[in-house]
Amino acid sequence: MTDITYMLTWNWLSGSLIATATEAATESNAEEGTLVLAGVLLSLVVIYFASQLGGEVCSRINLPPVLGQLVGGVLIGISAFRLLLFPEGGSVAEDSLLISFLQNTAGLTTESAPSVFTSSSEVITLLSELGVIILLFEIGLESDLKELIRVGPIAAVVAIVGVVAPFVTGTVGLIYIFGTPVVPAVFAGAALTATSIGITAKVLAELGQLSSEEGQIIIGAAVLDDILGIVVLAVVASLVKTGEIQITNIVYLVISAAVFLIGSILLGRLVSPLIVGLVNEMKTRGEVLLTGLVFAFVLSYIATAIHLEGILGAFAAGLILAETDKRKELEEQIIPVADFLVPIFFVCVGAKTDLSVLNPTVASNREGLIIATFLILVAILGKVITGFTVFGNPDLNKLAIGVGMIPRGEVGLVFAGVGSASGALSEATEAAIIVMVIATTFVAPPLLRLVFKETESIGQSVDKIQE
Amino acid sequence: MTDITYMLTWNWLSGSLIATATEAATESNAEEGTLVLAGVLLSLVVIYFASQLGGEVCSRINLPPVLGQLVGGVLIGISAFRLLLFPEGGSVAEDSLLISFLQNTAGLTTESAPSVFTSSSEVITLLSELGVIILLFEIGLESDLKELIRVGPIAAVVAIVGVVAPFVTGTVGLIYIFGTPVVPAVFAGAALTATSIGITAKVLAELGQLSSEEGQIIIGAAVLDDILGIVVLAVVASLVKTGEIQITNIVYLVISAAVFLIGSILLGRLVSPLIVGLVNEMKTRGEVLLTGLVFAFVLSYIATAIHLEGILGAFAAGLILAETDKRKELEEQIIPVADFLVPIFFVCVGAKTDLSVLNPTVASNREGLIIATFLILVAILGKVITGFTVFGNPDLNKLAIGVGMIPRGEVGLVFAGVGSASGALSEATEAAIIVMVIATTFVAPPLLRLVFKETESIGQSVDKIQE
Repeated sequence: MTDITYMLTWNWLSGSLIATATEAATESNAEEGTLVLAGVLLSLVVIYFASQLGGEVCSRINLPPVLGQLVGGVLIGISAFRLLLFPEGGSVAEDSLLISFLQNTAGLTTESAPSVFTSSSEVITLLSELGVIILLFEIGLESDLKELIRVGPIAAVVAIVGVVAPFVTGTVGLIYIFGTPVVPAVFAGAALTATSIGITAKVLAELGQLSSEEGQIIIGAAVLDDILGIVVLAVVASLVKTGEIQITNIVYLVISAAVFLIGSILLGRLVSPLIVGLVNEMKTRGEVLLTGLVFAFVLSYIATAIHLEGILGAFAAGLILAETDKRKELEEQIIPVADFLVPIFFVCVGAKTDLSVLNPTVASNREGLIIATFLILVAILGKVITGFTVFGNPDLNKLAIGVGMIPRGEVGLVFAGVGSASGALSEATEAAIIVMVIATTFVAPPLLRLVFKETESIGQSVDKIQE
Repeated sequence: MTDITYMLTWNWLSGSLIATATEAATESNAEEGTLVLAGVLLSLVVIYFASQLGGEVCSRINLPPVLGQLVGGVLIGISAFRLLLFPEGGSVAEDSLLISFLQNTAGLTTESAPSVFTSSSEVITLLSELGVIILLFEIGLESDLKELIRVGPIAAVVAIVGVVAPFVTGTVGLIYIFGTPVVPAVFAGAALTATSIGITAKVLAELGQLSSEEGQIIIGAAVLDDILGIVVLAVVASLVKTGEIQITNIVYLVISAAVFLIGSILLGRLVSPLIVGLVNEMKTRGEVLLTGLVFAFVLSYIATAIHLEGILGAFAAGLILAETDKRKELEEQIIPVADFLVPIFFVCVGAKTDLSVLNPTVASNREGLIIATFLILVAILGKVITGFTVFGNPDLNKLAIGVGMIPRGEVGLVFAGVGSASGALSEATEAAIIVMVIATTFVAPPLLRLVFKETESIGQSVDKIQE
């Protein structure tokens, strides 16, 4: 007994001095962890408030709710109330009203503010990325693989024309009309090729047009466009970096995308009966949802690992599981999870949009706005014409297909971001690209509703109601 | 036109050197962001796999699934396969098999590994914290405020006896039997007072006993215990730091907890009809779920800001909304969100549990194991007796109430963590506390099932089936 006492006493006495220092550090770590959680909770409250308010206002004035979520995001973001800011956007902790609120109400210290700001922003960014993955999984579940394969050739033509037409027109126009040097012109042209599958798919779902033939062509083309966009970005980035195009890299990307999409669907169809069999044996709560999510996350991970986008994997997983008899159950259970995560994505896209480039009273913006007007025209026309390349069914709403390809969304912002980081873009060109992305993203949802409405009212609707 | 060309050209030429450096940094940032997402996706796959596998095995051998989730967590955590590790646990990127996997498959570099490891662990920790908040919100929704108020006095006696009895027995026993100095003995005694509301509530829900009178007494007492635990921790921490007890701090904590719980429920009942009215007016998807979550997150934030625990706010929010006519709809929608987030919490508790202190072949562990045996006895008996303080209804399953208070779970680990950081604990005492926490956490779920089963089989069941 004395041995033990001695050791314990000795430990306690000799350790007490060092202990005080360690304790202070660990306590402040634990305190910081709690404050990061507090910051995330507050951010989510603000995000859901903006998303519901924007959604309600838009649905009352007959605009798509997703537009309201984007505008709600703009209101709480860098352009207006500065509640939800992100370090990538160049903001620091002192800019954020939410961080000030944490300082005033939850005892956040000035020293801890930057790390709490960075950590909570990082968590929100990741939740928004999970949100778009869940969205594409849900879109995949609601899509029809057979229909997608049937409209595949049409979608491929739409996607390719939608990349080539705006790219060539934009690049050549900038060089010859505005005298822009070749490299920034190519960058701006490349940014014109993107299509935001998230925004288009969300509007289609809101309009109940996701499973119509037009809807499936748009989704198919947007998915292909996502792959083409990655290839275009790789080409342009290597052009800027080395001054030449690395053919092997491009060939690798194209082949890996094709192998991934076709391979995962073929393999997935073989594996999915096993998955369903496994799920039928399970008794633990959440077995259908979690098995579906594991499948989606595994394919997303593989897509990310081979330098494609995670959302492609989630979409493929949704397509595969839509073919099984668990589709309905999975769809029902994924809806609340999507309601929880997807608004974070759209509100964040809005919050990250810096509208200050639109202010014409700032002299330096004017040049950008002139170039932007040209880019917006090319962006809209270059995608609208794709609808008229559609062959086969003459009853299809060709205008709707073209309009569905308009929004550049987050994909366009990636181009602007990479271009800006490369230093290849002048301020005016960069601003013009951002203005073009904003305009196409915000104009597409109401336009899409309009063109689908028109079809219905003049009785040309060819929607297929699929159970 | 020449002006523009000149500026653009100039920008491009002069900026190209700096540009290369900026680009490399930003590209690696973007790359790192993608890899953090990849790391989070992989972690979730591993977590869900462990949770479902553990849950299935346990439900087949008639043990509560949540025990399986904890054991599944242990298997993938620091004690076994080292897939899911956390920097707080002293792990570094090189220890993590998941990070090695990312390096081998997704091109993660050795330089980026530490920051990707830290960031993805931080996101998973935050998701697990959101998980326990959602769990307590769900438990609140499934609880019955009137019943809780009715059993309140009984629950208060259970909670207070469950704090005083193990604290006094543990502290005095350590000092007189093992000769432990006062401060570490007080710390170990304090760790004995905790109750893990999460684990108990989950097991009760799994047994369908959440709304029984016993269930509501246990939940009420566990909630009060959570508040008492915060007070005890504050007392002990100030005792270690300053050698004396700061009465004002304790009075502040007790008053703020009481004001918060009573105030939020009273105010909440006034506000909830307004909330329901607002939700009825909404047309955007997810209106019930998101409004409920906003309410829960606001109360969680307030609880965190006044130095209580976020889970108390979520529980109060659930209780308040359970009184409205949206209860059923909200419950249905919260289930998939809970299925998505709650397993992350239980698996993380398991993954953070370091079982190496249990190895008796390591000589230095033996002393800890001897003290641990004493602590486990006190921990179990000190809570089991609380059931026999229950007055009023003689038909109540008193043993079940006492057993329900046994698991220390994450709350006990917080005590061990703070004690370890303060340097007040010898290695043996710290190890003994951790062993006690592990034993009570893992033994409570099967014991609880056993005592509730026994009651049923000998026909003393007094479960009330509520609507």
